[in-house]
Amino acid sequence: MTQAKTWILKQHFEGFPKDTDFELKREKLPEPRDGEVLLEALFLSVDPYMRPYSRVRMQPGDVMIGTQVAKVIQSNNPSFPVGCYVVGQCGWRTHTVSDGSGLIKVFADWPQDVSLSHAIGAIGMPGLTALYGLEEVCAIKPGETLLVNAAAGAVGSVVGQIAKLKGCKVVGSAGSDEKVAYLKELGFDEAFNYKTVSSLEEALKKASPEGYDCYFENVGGPFSSVALSQMKTFGRIAVCGGISMYNDTTPQTGPYPHMHMIFKQLKMEGFLVSRWQNKNEESLKRMLTWMQEGKLKCKEHVTVGFENMPAAFMGMLQGENIGKAVIKV
Amino acid sequence: MTQAKTWILKQHFEGFPKDTDFELKREKLPEPRDGEVLLEALFLSVDPYMRPYSRVRMQPGDVMIGTQVAKVIQSNNPSFPVGCYVVGQCGWRTHTVSDGSGLIKVFADWPQDVSLSHAIGAIGMPGLTALYGLEEVCAIKPGETLLVNAAAGAVGSVVGQIAKLKGCKVVGSAGSDEKVAYLKELGFDEAFNYKTVSSLEEALKKASPEGYDCYFENVGGPFSSVALSQMKTFGRIAVCGGISMYNDTTPQTGPYPHMHMIFKQLKMEGFLVSRWQNKNEESLKRMLTWMQEGKLKCKEHVTVGFENMPAAFMGMLQGENIGKAVIKV
Repeated sequence: MTQAKTWILKQHFEGFPKDTDFELKREKLPEPRDGEVLLEALFLSVDPYMRPYSRVRMQPGDVMIGTQVAKVIQSNNPSFPVGCYVVGQCGWRTHTVSDGSGLIKVFADWPQDVSLSHAIGAIGMPGLTALYGLEEVCAIKPGETLLVNAAAGAVGSVVGQIAKLKGCKVVGSAGSDEKVAYLKELGFDEAFNYKTVSSLEEALKKASPEGYDCYFENVGGPFSSVALSQMKTFGRIAVCGGISMYNDTTPQTGPYPHMHMIFKQLKMEGFLVSRWQNKNEESLKRMLTWMQEGKLKCKEHVTVGFENMPAAFMGMLQGENIGKAVIKV
Repeated sequence: MTQAKTWILKQHFEGFPKDTDFELKREKLPEPRDGEVLLEALFLSVDPYMRPYSRVRMQPGDVMIGTQVAKVIQSNNPSFPVGCYVVGQCGWRTHTVSDGSGLIKVFADWPQDVSLSHAIGAIGMPGLTALYGLEEVCAIKPGETLLVNAAAGAVGSVVGQIAKLKGCKVVGSAGSDEKVAYLKELGFDEAFNYKTVSSLEEALKKASPEGYDCYFENVGGPFSSVALSQMKTFGRIAVCGGISMYNDTTPQTGPYPHMHMIFKQLKMEGFLVSRWQNKNEESLKRMLTWMQEGKLKCKEHVTVGFENMPAAFMGMLQGENIGKAVIKV
């Protein structure tokens, strides 16, 4: 009999999450039955979306939602033999009994020199989010100028690199000088620390005096109002996230976007990565190739120890990470 | 020598326009030269867009911008013989000397029983705005549910009728019981007076418990925030106007739209009617046919006398009109 450790949402977050909102629980797992497998988590993901989803997808007492890279350690399911690696939406748990539904096998030819943890990062959901936001939502074209915020994060850093691969000018905003240096290293044309610029509007104007064709939105709040004012005619805005607003107890307000949207004929679209899942396999292969060719670089911010997941989650929400925040069990 | 009367923007509007912002001026026109024509205005248009455009397209001392139906009364341009009718962006003026550029001839076969004034209404810019917002921006499909506000206005009333012609369910919001009765007369499935409902959210839910596929936005402000919360997944929002915000001296603020946009994968697009002008001729013919077949009805709110244009404009901004506000010289 296997014992799993799990992290439970003890109570709904009010404002910024705190230690006492989480509870570590031990759970005895049943033996896997026919068709089932037993998974052992290797890497777990903490992502911004977990904060808003905690309200809509979880009840107090539920295991925190989330994706992990796991190894099959017992199997009664021929599709997932012992020793194979999968990505699963198992939640924050060290071990899981699964009937295989929803599990995605890591490519059999996953290269030795690429950490499996990237399967929940650049070669996983965050990477796909970046790709689809640019290709499907923005329909970005070579020569265009892109603005991305939270640019040193798991999604933003991939957004900027893909846009560079597509022949675009890329401007990134991030919250520390270290992050800005990282963005320059990744090949961003312009990058600035939004916490220290004297005027966001001036920073955006300086980085691209002609304005922006595309804006990959991860932040929301006042940043978005200023960015809107700097869009070019027919600009496209991919609304991926709004991390600056996730912990609000009362919703932040800002000027209505109508006038900019009308006069500049802007298109703004919210999206979830799941919309294009029929393209995932091909997309992941493309991105893995870019990574192997050295065209896509992905720093990871690794927290060791399942016990530290809440701290890693809260740290990520505060922007402690450069690149993808992952937990190594 | 012809004398034209013109209305001048005396000073930029601050908040709601007032009588003293306008000045009636008389102007002596030169004789039309070779290639030029002399126009006499029959009907002039007052439209909401003139309020925000006054800031971006006009300087104090300029003639107010606007469209008119005019008759050619002298001509040195064989393309526009004496007696033909044109639609021109001549501004608020009774007479204009024009070289013909930008003038659009009213269809030679314009039916006798359709007032020429519709050429600046349903069979003109406002009608095209309605059509393109539905067809090009929303890409509305039969069976879908549409929400339109300022629904008894020049654009809104056409929006609702076209959507009905396309086999949609149509919900309209307007600002008086008389307008609501008019919407029912036009065939709207549901209509309500937003000024008297106890809760806008409840009114929207009651009118369409399943939510809205498309939202044709003419109003902005708090209405838009509530409407956003009632959209269905993959809803489309055509941002045409924001009349509730045009007279603000400081921009109104409201909750950021991000969370609704992401979770419901909404698409919001601002647009100007000029984007599709290559389709105008075909579109106007389609709408004229609908009108002749009795499928498109268009009430007009006619103000007689060029002297009354500012009053008509301010009245329209306050929602005094049902249907298109026009001035008969």
